[in-house]
Amino acid sequence: VVPPVSRPLEDLKVRLAELVDLGRIAVLLQWDQQTKMPPRGSGSRADQRATLGRISHERFVSVEVGRLLEAAEAQPPEEGSDDAELLRLTRRHWEKARRVPTELRVEITRAASLAIPAWTEARERSDYPLLLPHLEQGLELRQRYVECFDGYDEPYDVLLDDFEEGLRTARAREVLGQLRDLLRPLIAALAERADAVDASVLHGRYPAGAQRAFVERLLTGIGFNRDSWRLDVTAHPFASHTGHGDARITTRWDESYLGSGLFAALHEFGHGLYDDGVDPALERTPLGDVTASMALHESQSRLWENVVGRSRSFWCHWYGALRETFPEQLGGTDAEGFYRAVNQVRPSLIRVEADEATYSLHIVLRFELEQELLEGRLSLADLPEAWNAGMLEYLGVEVPDDASGVLQDIHWASGAFGYFPTYALGNVVAGQVWARARGELPDLDEQLAAGDTATLRAWLCNALYRDGRRRPPAKTIERVCGGPMDPKPFVDYLAGKLGEIYGLNGAG
Amino acid sequence: VVPPVSRPLEDLKVRLAELVDLGRIAVLLQWDQQTKMPPRGSGSRADQRATLGRISHERFVSVEVGRLLEAAEAQPPEEGSDDAELLRLTRRHWEKARRVPTELRVEITRAASLAIPAWTEARERSDYPLLLPHLEQGLELRQRYVECFDGYDEPYDVLLDDFEEGLRTARAREVLGQLRDLLRPLIAALAERADAVDASVLHGRYPAGAQRAFVERLLTGIGFNRDSWRLDVTAHPFASHTGHGDARITTRWDESYLGSGLFAALHEFGHGLYDDGVDPALERTPLGDVTASMALHESQSRLWENVVGRSRSFWCHWYGALRETFPEQLGGTDAEGFYRAVNQVRPSLIRVEADEATYSLHIVLRFELEQELLEGRLSLADLPEAWNAGMLEYLGVEVPDDASGVLQDIHWASGAFGYFPTYALGNVVAGQVWARARGELPDLDEQLAAGDTATLRAWLCNALYRDGRRRPPAKTIERVCGGPMDPKPFVDYLAGKLGEIYGLNGAG
Repeated sequence: VVPPVSRPLEDLKVRLAELVDLGRIAVLLQWDQQTKMPPRGSGSRADQRATLGRISHERFVSVEVGRLLEAAEAQPPEEGSDDAELLRLTRRHWEKARRVPTELRVEITRAASLAIPAWTEARERSDYPLLLPHLEQGLELRQRYVECFDGYDEPYDVLLDDFEEGLRTARAREVLGQLRDLLRPLIAALAERADAVDASVLHGRYPAGAQRAFVERLLTGIGFNRDSWRLDVTAHPFASHTGHGDARITTRWDESYLGSGLFAALHEFGHGLYDDGVDPALERTPLGDVTASMALHESQSRLWENVVGRSRSFWCHWYGALRETFPEQLGGTDAEGFYRAVNQVRPSLIRVEADEATYSLHIVLRFELEQELLEGRLSLADLPEAWNAGMLEYLGVEVPDDASGVLQDIHWASGAFGYFPTYALGNVVAGQVWARARGELPDLDEQLAAGDTATLRAWLCNALYRDGRRRPPAKTIERVCGGPMDPKPFVDYLAGKLGEIYGLNGAG
Repeated sequence: VVPPVSRPLEDLKVRLAELVDLGRIAVLLQWDQQTKMPPRGSGSRADQRATLGRISHERFVSVEVGRLLEAAEAQPPEEGSDDAELLRLTRRHWEKARRVPTELRVEITRAASLAIPAWTEARERSDYPLLLPHLEQGLELRQRYVECFDGYDEPYDVLLDDFEEGLRTARAREVLGQLRDLLRPLIAALAERADAVDASVLHGRYPAGAQRAFVERLLTGIGFNRDSWRLDVTAHPFASHTGHGDARITTRWDESYLGSGLFAALHEFGHGLYDDGVDPALERTPLGDVTASMALHESQSRLWENVVGRSRSFWCHWYGALRETFPEQLGGTDAEGFYRAVNQVRPSLIRVEADEATYSLHIVLRFELEQELLEGRLSLADLPEAWNAGMLEYLGVEVPDDASGVLQDIHWASGAFGYFPTYALGNVVAGQVWARARGELPDLDEQLAAGDTATLRAWLCNALYRDGRRRPPAKTIERVCGGPMDPKPFVDYLAGKLGEIYGLNGAG
């Protein structure tokens, strides 16, 4: 007997496919706003984004989707099947989305859309008061958002769940606390031998056009191609997945510092690779959406930016081409010297330009400030002061102006409170994924040194990318890392590499 | 007594504002697809456009909009007011849209989205059979579209109405027939004196970068600015209005022919200026949409491209800057020589590069072929042959390959049957508008010669742009032209200019 066709599930999938389309259109509107849109278009764009957000939300939380969901659940698919997971997570998202009134969603979207140009201007002019009213509105909207929920241990849980599904703040605090405690002695030991590494070669005159030419050559060599990727320039680098075969990344060029554009491009490339590697069979389904765990997503950007992109074997292959591009600037530096330079550890002001060791401390500070803001223990008016105090405490650096301080990141302006911890968790996961990859690919170093990243990419695709969102994030992490999140492999990797470079343990 | 607040009208306006937002998002998706999207993104983009089209259509033809419309009509606004016109045209659009099943709309959108990359490839390879199945699907969809309606005199009326609201095919045939009959003796007389104008200076080595630099300078000088405009490069130039303060135009650079990119940019600038000049008070209302009469829209592109852009006074000001950009290529030519060159009349293959006199014959051919295709009197398989025969008959030119023939335009690939006549009608209206402007601005020539286009722009804005779609197209044309469409002013203007240049009537 042929079983009856599961119409409710099929009908639900049609609805969900439309919502994936609308979500990607929203990504494109944002991409365009940051890369191409003339500045005076921002009012219209805010309306467009608000309307699209309202319609998406209304269509998802509709009674009809609820009915289809219930009917589909009444004919449960095989346990462990894609359909079962699709139903499980759709139910989760639907229950969550229904709690938030459409008008609040719309206000959040509209406020973010208007805050972005204000952030751009405030950052350019180092004028925090210009952004303050936008931040206040954004935070207030987030607080109202939190109030839509119950069943959380602390308010921050609600925000974190949007970026790292199922993770509680207490657990994030535990992992990040371990990470911080493991990193601090390493950073202190490296500080003792600060003179062991000279990174001055990265600072000099590096024209944007030549940087771009090299970065395009490098990216093309590791998997970027013009048939399905774009590279653009923005104040704040990001990656956008606007469709199958349509991965868009951005970077920025600092003509006096080579590290900025290069490593930002590698970072965003890692994001793009993850999105691009999802099984096409999951296209236009919620299982194709790999943004449910930004820790996993950031693990891939951090892996390509740092673990691969600051490895000896990687530059063993690529340094020749880089020196060809900048013969004058790099004439006196060999591959080993460059490798050492890009691994310099030095507490600094800008998160996206921070070294691998101190980076996570930038995150810990933001994570703490976010919780204080959300719970009202810190006012936004006092944020710059708290920021500057935190930077001094954690990194020992004095913040000279808000542009290099509290205004450096777009996240809060765009309403993304709760996102930051996923960067450091991404480091943690990257360490675990890397340990696994090294175990399974014994020739990895030789391959990278020969300019071959295809084997690594195939391994990552197979181990992680391909499966998309077929499992809940925590299960995917367990599966790809062989256990729950654990900072030790990351810190071990770091201590091994940096210990050798800096000559700790009498090694260098 | 205060009258009761007209809630249905206000609620209707909210609905319509959302639909304007969705329409502009659709424009952005199309703009992006043609300017920025990596080629492999076209499948996802087709889904996105189809979904957006479906949702827009469903929301517009919904029972709720119908109820609001009816309720608003029951409290009729003051005759002649903006609200009255808004209700009138919304009713018209609603009745029209309801006749078309959503699925047919979606199929039309999706088919167009998939046909565009096929057209690009077919045109590059001059491979008509590659495009043929897409054209067949597109035409069949259009025929099904026509079948949704009744009350037309001939099937083509239905398509024409989408681009030129209220105009019947018979009337278009009449105007275009008059135009053709007035142009033919002029073109014949000019052919007798073909040697009088030498345009060889336009052909040579004109690097794209320098063309772009000059065109940006020129456009900026006449009203383009980076705060609210963009200029990009596409195979087929177009203008997109993606929002208030967000006018996007494209052009293409032919490095062996200076006329191509320059005049395409001026053409699209004219479109952008019209969109950009609409009263901001009409934002997010159907009255802000000036695409209901493409003849009016094209009148502005043709006006800036030709009437202004090929005038003696315009080049009197701009030729110095052009010669600065191309000192070698233009060293032996003065402003008068350049003015004569850009006004050369010579039957040719490519519509968008045709001169002002022969251009309309390209259109008449397309207009006739479209009607034959729609009514099944001509098959798409036989179209290239019919095209080539028509080009020989109307323009006396042999078409060497389909890339220079039937594949040159994107319109049919994108499903836009019925659009072409509006270009020639645009010429007609431009002639009438220009005659009016000259009458009201006696110093116009002197202003253009001094590089001042602000007075003309202000006049156009006041006479036409500002009012958007506050009146039905035919009424707007009557108002700005002082009467119904009439080819005579256009042909008079042309005969005057070209007669002098070519020395007809013993003048030269």
